[in-house]
Amino acid sequence: MKHDKILMAHGGGGQLTDSLIHDHILSRLGNEALSPLGDSALLSVGREKICFSTDSFVVKPLFFNGGDIGKLAVCGTVNDLAVAGAMPMALSLALIMEEGLEIAVLDRVLESIAATAKACGVSVVTGDTKTVEKGAADKLFINTAGIGLYPSGLNLGMDQIKAGDRILISGTIGDHGMTIMSEREEIRFQSPLASDCAPLNGLIQGLLDQCPGIRFMRDPTRGGVAATLNEISRATGLNVAIQEDAVPVTLTVRAAADMLGFDVLNIANEGKVVIVVDQAEAGACLKACQDHALGRQASIIGQVVKADSAPVVELVTKIGGKRIVQMPYGRELPRIC
Amino acid sequence: MKHDKILMAHGGGGQLTDSLIHDHILSRLGNEALSPLGDSALLSVGREKICFSTDSFVVKPLFFNGGDIGKLAVCGTVNDLAVAGAMPMALSLALIMEEGLEIAVLDRVLESIAATAKACGVSVVTGDTKTVEKGAADKLFINTAGIGLYPSGLNLGMDQIKAGDRILISGTIGDHGMTIMSEREEIRFQSPLASDCAPLNGLIQGLLDQCPGIRFMRDPTRGGVAATLNEISRATGLNVAIQEDAVPVTLTVRAAADMLGFDVLNIANEGKVVIVVDQAEAGACLKACQDHALGRQASIIGQVVKADSAPVVELVTKIGGKRIVQMPYGRELPRIC
Repeated sequence: MKHDKILMAHGGGGQLTDSLIHDHILSRLGNEALSPLGDSALLSVGREKICFSTDSFVVKPLFFNGGDIGKLAVCGTVNDLAVAGAMPMALSLALIMEEGLEIAVLDRVLESIAATAKACGVSVVTGDTKTVEKGAADKLFINTAGIGLYPSGLNLGMDQIKAGDRILISGTIGDHGMTIMSEREEIRFQSPLASDCAPLNGLIQGLLDQCPGIRFMRDPTRGGVAATLNEISRATGLNVAIQEDAVPVTLTVRAAADMLGFDVLNIANEGKVVIVVDQAEAGACLKACQDHALGRQASIIGQVVKADSAPVVELVTKIGGKRIVQMPYGRELPRIC
Repeated sequence: MKHDKILMAHGGGGQLTDSLIHDHILSRLGNEALSPLGDSALLSVGREKICFSTDSFVVKPLFFNGGDIGKLAVCGTVNDLAVAGAMPMALSLALIMEEGLEIAVLDRVLESIAATAKACGVSVVTGDTKTVEKGAADKLFINTAGIGLYPSGLNLGMDQIKAGDRILISGTIGDHGMTIMSEREEIRFQSPLASDCAPLNGLIQGLLDQCPGIRFMRDPTRGGVAATLNEISRATGLNVAIQEDAVPVTLTVRAAADMLGFDVLNIANEGKVVIVVDQAEAGACLKACQDHALGRQASIIGQVVKADSAPVVELVTKIGGKRIVQMPYGRELPRIC
């Protein structure tokens, strides 16, 4: 279906984002580094390789349980570098501020950026500030770009994935998206929801040191685990089969998703990583994950299998039924990050 | 003066931007790479050095005579890398789109980005798209970040500037800012105004090859030549003395600035570079500039001189009077880039 105007779903990380990127952006700007659409681009600098990534953040509200736009802006780019296998070394920070934004709010966000960058071991090295008139933006938008060193000898990528590989998730899913949505809708639950927003570079560095059988990683942000698994299936031509009861979800997120009519697989995470690993190393990788504070509830959720026809993501439900997990359309949760 | 809310002038590149950056950002995020507030940060990668820079673009209108937000977004970051002495190698591109933006408008901007990147010899290697609800942004905001290779042996910086050095500008000033302002105010002149928006990496590469006596370069964007010269004076503790009649300005820009009550020295340029060069090489540098299509109207506009007291930027007017050129306040021209 053709659209002549931008819809909210064009930014949702699903089918419409996908068509926007392929039909409008890659058709004009595509090149060897951009077209693979990785979480970051791999570039050569002398004998070294670096990863380069960017994200803008338009989350609403600016502050939420478990994080804020500043923490998100640092974690988002650090995580994009980390899942690509790179060690984050430097960030840029660009602020678009609406006239009338309270400086105390800005200060709180800057404090959070400083604390998160420190926790990640990265520095903000360059930046920009812009202001627009009242009504021309919604309080504060942030862009970060980041550079990370890609270790020599590492070779991660969807092209490394083989049938038989196992799929891990580093913890419970849906926490970030359901937190934002419930705060926006002012719905309260007995156990409070909290975003999982966290920097993954420490966890991932440990995994890479211990598990040479890791093929590929991605942080399932917009579009959730469903989008990540569909991207894997599409790129490899292989099926992805997951077990519903192996997917960790907190009771509160489950209740919130059921109540609001969302599939948790489509909901954004901001501190989780999907790992595709050689079957023989899956147990060791799971243990390495669980040994880290951010991976305690890690789980092997499924595997990659040969496709007999068009590749799909298949979910085996708790009662043994099967259903196809579609690429989300993208309108699930606007302004989630 | 303390403000508790963001004003338009906080993004204007003048005094208020300056205080925002120092009092709120650097106090929390400052480090060796960020605190010099260069056009880009210098980072080591193995044996190589790279420059890293970012800018967001919120220009209004999106299309103007001589350019558009896409061309500006590529040139802005390419120029920040080029004036630092780096050879631009890769850009990121992040789009924040307002719901309802016409896809034909987006396509036109993307075409312009593609054409400008090609002209600069750089690729867009990574990117991001976000959408926000109608009314939460003004059509389209763009962020670019860029990486450039910094040649070994080069040593540019304000700390290289000495009394006696000459100051060049690569062409007429005020064209970009006056074009945007006149289009926004729907004021027409007999000779149409056109933005000078252009990529400077070709011109600058030629200058660096031919003039080893170049000490420092900066593109006088927001805040104009006045902001750049004040930054030089403040950082070096030296006076900057310029001759009004040596500063190239087109008749139309002059007329527009006079009519609208602007000082052309405060007006943004998007395709000009201020060069500080060893006095002995100033003539050669001027000639090298004038040999390039983008530097035909280059001029030596003044020099750096020892300060007897607090350093200032001093303008000798056409009739021989003297006046201090202040750091602009920043409210001159909102959303100019």
